[in-house]
Amino acid sequence: MKAVVFAGEGKVRLTDVPEPGLRAPTDAIVRVERAAICGTDLHSVAHPANLPRGFVLGHEFAGRIVELGDAVRGHRRGDRVVGADFTACGMCWWCRHGDHWECAERRFFGTGSAFGPPLPGAQAELVLVPFADTVLRPVPADVSLDAAVFFGDTLATAHVAIQRAELRPGDSVAIIGGGPVGQLTSLVAQACGAGVVILVEPVESRRQAAAREGALTAAPEGARDVVDQVTDGRGADAAIDAIGGGTGLDTAFGLVRRRGTVVSAGVHTGAWSLPADRAFADELSLRFAIGDLMRHGDELVGLVRSGAVDPAVVASETVALDEAPEAYRRMAERRTLKSLIRL
Amino acid sequence: MKAVVFAGEGKVRLTDVPEPGLRAPTDAIVRVERAAICGTDLHSVAHPANLPRGFVLGHEFAGRIVELGDAVRGHRRGDRVVGADFTACGMCWWCRHGDHWECAERRFFGTGSAFGPPLPGAQAELVLVPFADTVLRPVPADVSLDAAVFFGDTLATAHVAIQRAELRPGDSVAIIGGGPVGQLTSLVAQACGAGVVILVEPVESRRQAAAREGALTAAPEGARDVVDQVTDGRGADAAIDAIGGGTGLDTAFGLVRRRGTVVSAGVHTGAWSLPADRAFADELSLRFAIGDLMRHGDELVGLVRSGAVDPAVVASETVALDEAPEAYRRMAERRTLKSLIRL
Amino acid sequence: MKAVVFAGEGKVRLTDVPEPGLRAPTDAIVRVERAAICGTDLHSVAHPANLPRGFVLGHEFAGRIVELGDAVRGHRRGDRVVGADFTACGMCWWCRHGDHWECAERRFFGTGSAFGPPLPGAQAELVLVPFADTVLRPVPADVSLDAAVFFGDTLATAHVAIQRAELRPGDSVAIIGGGPVGQLTSLVAQACGAGVVILVEPVESRRQAAAREGALTAAPEGARDVVDQVTDGRGADAAIDAIGGGTGLDTAFGLVRRRGTVVSAGVHTGAWSLPADRAFADELSLRFAIGDLMRHGDELVGLVRSGAVDPAVVASETVALDEAPEAYRRMAERRTLKSLIRL
Amino acid sequence: MKAVVFAGEGKVRLTDVPEPGLRAPTDAIVRVERAAICGTDLHSVAHPANLPRGFVLGHEFAGRIVELGDAVRGHRRGDRVVGADFTACGMCWWCRHGDHWECAERRFFGTGSAFGPPLPGAQAELVLVPFADTVLRPVPADVSLDAAVFFGDTLATAHVAIQRAELRPGDSVAIIGGGPVGQLTSLVAQACGAGVVILVEPVESRRQAAAREGALTAAPEGARDVVDQVTDGRGADAAIDAIGGGTGLDTAFGLVRRRGTVVSAGVHTGAWSLPADRAFADELSLRFAIGDLMRHGDELVGLVRSGAVDPAVVASETVALDEAPEAYRRMAERRTLKSLIRL
Repeated sequence: MKAVVFAGEGKVRLTDVPEPGLRAPTDAIVRVERAAICGTDLHSVAHPANLPRGFVLGHEFAGRIVELGDAVRGHRRGDRVVGADFTACGMCWWCRHGDHWECAERRFFGTGSAFGPPLPGAQAELVLVPFADTVLRPVPADVSLDAAVFFGDTLATAHVAIQRAELRPGDSVAIIGGGPVGQLTSLVAQACGAGVVILVEPVESRRQAAAREGALTAAPEGARDVVDQVTDGRGADAAIDAIGGGTGLDTAFGLVRRRGTVVSAGVHTGAWSLPADRAFADELSLRFAIGDLMRHGDELVGLVRSGAVDPAVVASETVALDEAPEAYRRMAERRTLKSLIRL
Repeated sequence: MKAVVFAGEGKVRLTDVPEPGLRAPTDAIVRVERAAICGTDLHSVAHPANLPRGFVLGHEFAGRIVELGDAVRGHRRGDRVVGADFTACGMCWWCRHGDHWECAERRFFGTGSAFGPPLPGAQAELVLVPFADTVLRPVPADVSLDAAVFFGDTLATAHVAIQRAELRPGDSVAIIGGGPVGQLTSLVAQACGAGVVILVEPVESRRQAAAREGALTAAPEGARDVVDQVTDGRGADAAIDAIGGGTGLDTAFGLVRRRGTVVSAGVHTGAWSLPADRAFADELSLRFAIGDLMRHGDELVGLVRSGAVDPAVVASETVALDEAPEAYRRMAERRTLKSLIRL
Repeated sequence: MKAVVFAGEGKVRLTDVPEPGLRAPTDAIVRVERAAICGTDLHSVAHPANLPRGFVLGHEFAGRIVELGDAVRGHRRGDRVVGADFTACGMCWWCRHGDHWECAERRFFGTGSAFGPPLPGAQAELVLVPFADTVLRPVPADVSLDAAVFFGDTLATAHVAIQRAELRPGDSVAIIGGGPVGQLTSLVAQACGAGVVILVEPVESRRQAAAREGALTAAPEGARDVVDQVTDGRGADAAIDAIGGGTGLDTAFGLVRRRGTVVSAGVHTGAWSLPADRAFADELSLRFAIGDLMRHGDELVGLVRSGAVDPAVVASETVALDEAPEAYRRMAERRTLKSLIRL
Repeated sequence: MKAVVFAGEGKVRLTDVPEPGLRAPTDAIVRVERAAICGTDLHSVAHPANLPRGFVLGHEFAGRIVELGDAVRGHRRGDRVVGADFTACGMCWWCRHGDHWECAERRFFGTGSAFGPPLPGAQAELVLVPFADTVLRPVPADVSLDAAVFFGDTLATAHVAIQRAELRPGDSVAIIGGGPVGQLTSLVAQACGAGVVILVEPVESRRQAAAREGALTAAPEGARDVVDQVTDGRGADAAIDAIGGGTGLDTAFGLVRRRGTVVSAGVHTGAWSLPADRAFADELSLRFAIGDLMRHGDELVGLVRSGAVDPAVVASETVALDEAPEAYRRMAERRTLKSLIRL
């Protein structure tokens, strides 16, 4: 079958790989109808420490089940489904608590061994899905696959960021970063009780995209002024770091009000110098969050099927599978926000 | 000053009454710039058990402070403010818990002695406001008085109904009744995490109004079918009774899913035959709710100033104070949804 | 094998029945080491509408797994486990929400067809457990089976009652009924944030049992006075009906404070005349609750293994399996509170 | 009147100072019947950057109101009251949200200008209390002043730490530090839903005190082993830093489970190197918390009057006011845990 694979530092290519087969009675095989390219894919390819050449990429996918292990009970062949971007057993103490990311059976699709044992990705015609009862979610007939493909990562991440912020109705929310996660965080915030939402982003086209979808926007250098203006000088009730790293946290701490909450939904790779004196004196909360379709899937379905949130707005271009390598390039050059792949 | 007063069963009229003066150091006098006519006003006038002739009507108002008692600390003369529709001391155990309705100092504006000792209403040029620090809330410059006038009752009631439903994101919400409270309950639900919202109402124009503002709608007889269709046959996660009485509860119980929540934001005057066997077998929750600007004022400001909710959509006509008696008539005849009075 | 079976209205007896065998790959067989007799058993036997003669009784059990279907993943032969008192598939929309009672695969152990298709009970040497991954929970080594046997019903019911009350720390809790559920509700309340707990019960020995475990107690006729004394006349923040029927609700409504919460954890068989006028004027909440080990099992383990709650205090006698028929009699005559069966 | 005052670095003495008088109509004067010495007092005296000589010390107090300004509405002369350890206006946006620490009118008793404009302390016969309606809380007749004196700081701090941890029932809680706050945090945790509580403390006598009150205990070097043993190797659901500084956070991060919560209730004076990579990969939450009687007073009253929590256990000695200087010394030398002053 055709698949997008890692082809050496900074490179991806379309190639033929063997079709996957069931390995465990809890597995399923999904024919991929939609996949997407994520910033994590770009990062893996650019910094391929844990990624062997020829490894199938991609962790965002939706499609139809074509094969099922004997122990899968909740799905049938032919079902339209979306996959989480990582696996979990669905049985253990962590899974029972909804903490699937902490499950010992975690494997992350299409990223080599960066986040657990390797599991081939979903930018391919077929993908093997372990623990299918837990990892796959049915897509209702009134939700398009163009929307559902984002449930597994981009929308799940936006959603968990807002849930961990524990908004009171009308709370002001500053979002740091206008990439795909930041854009959807703005939509989820607006649907889930936020008052004013301020998206902070240096790139004008991304600010415009956020503004079209209801956010106030600001460039980083003017962000505090904008926030002050709409919060009577207090700062944002919640500040969501949607870019990661120290920069995201620094900006978030600069915008959050006293006794407010900072949520970081971005990746961090080292230590960060927390201003503990201010965090104490201002009684701040800082929470890290990783998206989880398995925990929040029904909530996402509810928000999307009603039209409250449309995640497809982040797909700035749609390509065929064999155009994916070009789409990677455009996205890495920030010429596109996010690429949807239709198979 | 001019005021709208009760003029005998079913009648109101505009007349001159003495201007109110401060009585306690915690009082304020507000020059009313906006008032509104509420279903409760119509009911008081039609069933005037506790309402003396000549009593000034009305409990929804916004305007400017013109006089202040010595002990008022949080307001200044000239401040734009909106009033709660009832009073509370702001100091007692109940008030500290946010349970202002339970405060021993409760008086309800403009309804005679129906809900506490009598307190003249706000459909007048001036209104006396006891416990001004607690009862009045500042209206920020970016919120219009046309919107703020609804904070005290219609929007506060819609809001508390949704808060007591404790929605999970994406939850389906059925709203029984397309009057002003039902219409705003739909808006608050959509802003505060609901997925699909189904407004159930027999009058077509009210259904159309709700549909324009994002709700699915159904006539009562077809409501269960509509709800089933969008909830895969389960019923609504929450059902809000926005009309009161046994009919509202009956309809709500007919639409709510198992282990769901019914909230009643309507008035009840006697007993209701609760199907306890089903409520037990289905683990239902039933919660009664009364709007409270004092508890939720900052949340309302946050939702309205950001544009997340626009309560002014319920004002189907705007009149001057001397046109108010005619406006009562049109509203009682259901020719208008709700009248806004501009002074 | 030996089992306690229904022997005609009001009668149970010990008899030999065939050993159960696996029927589905998700089944397990548990060797019962502890069982208990519940008020529901007494009721089933006294009013046997849905109960055939010879049906094995009992739904509270703990023991060891002796046989497992191929599709069971979370348990191994020899594991110490406790069972929920009913079954659920663990996969469907309801189960994903923690609403196992609403699952279409619900069957209740040992009660004929009262609450779903019949499923033989656990007052026997062996019990067949469908959906073992969902229905059985491991019992940690530091929790005794004498305690664990109550997780499936009595403690789970007490626990859900308190969770649905959504206590604030220090809240006063009135509990109506000093039977086994009422006694454990008092313990869970004390462990989970309650301030004063008042257990209302006509039988003195049951009041004494509650008092030994930290509750204030009152006979029904003096209950309001006691509650008023410790709540400065306000009434209880939460009132838990642990007996069911209209009487339980009437008493609970008589004790709850304004804007408080009534939770009913008892069985209801018909309608109840809800004082809707007062419920509205006082903004009350009324919530029905059914125990669910599958939802709350880890919470129960946490509370019991730490010593915060010891459910074994409700076992007023311990008998062997062949003494169970006598124990039924003593419990029906209210000479014992609850019988623990050791096999 | 007699008062304990700062007498130069490391020194306090008893002296005569002028009696305070009312300065604003919202003030009250309280005759102090109980005061306490806090670690913050020791720290202020040892590092007196913002503390003038002769300044009256102390911020924990309970007593009776002897004088009241005209605008005080919620108290009467002669009322038994306990004071918060800092002031707030009770009117502003922050106060309405329960965020009193953020109020612009904050002054902290008895600490010079460390946390706001100076306000003389309460280790004296009389103390001036601004904003008495907000800052003072009535002490019910069934709560002793020996207990109430700790409401303002030690117990309020323990309480907010546990509330911010948002425990699920049965959660394991590790508490870093067996000083007065750590000891009471253990009590509040046990009363508010914790399962096992592990108090981590190097001093054996403090571990013994915690063990007597129901906690497991561990010395810092063996803490992870103890926590692992009672959490099946996962780590604590919540870890509370009750000592402050980088050490407290380091230890807390070493004990908390993945997706768990760290709450810091200690003082921080600079930056701390947050392991952001692990915090991200493990989805941790970190929340800073400052005690607030004004927010939590009714909860504290509910927990203490019922006997659920007895804060007086931290008073390891009781002295007269003129013995206070000696008591400071013993406490600084860690010969006592905390000194209660009876006047």
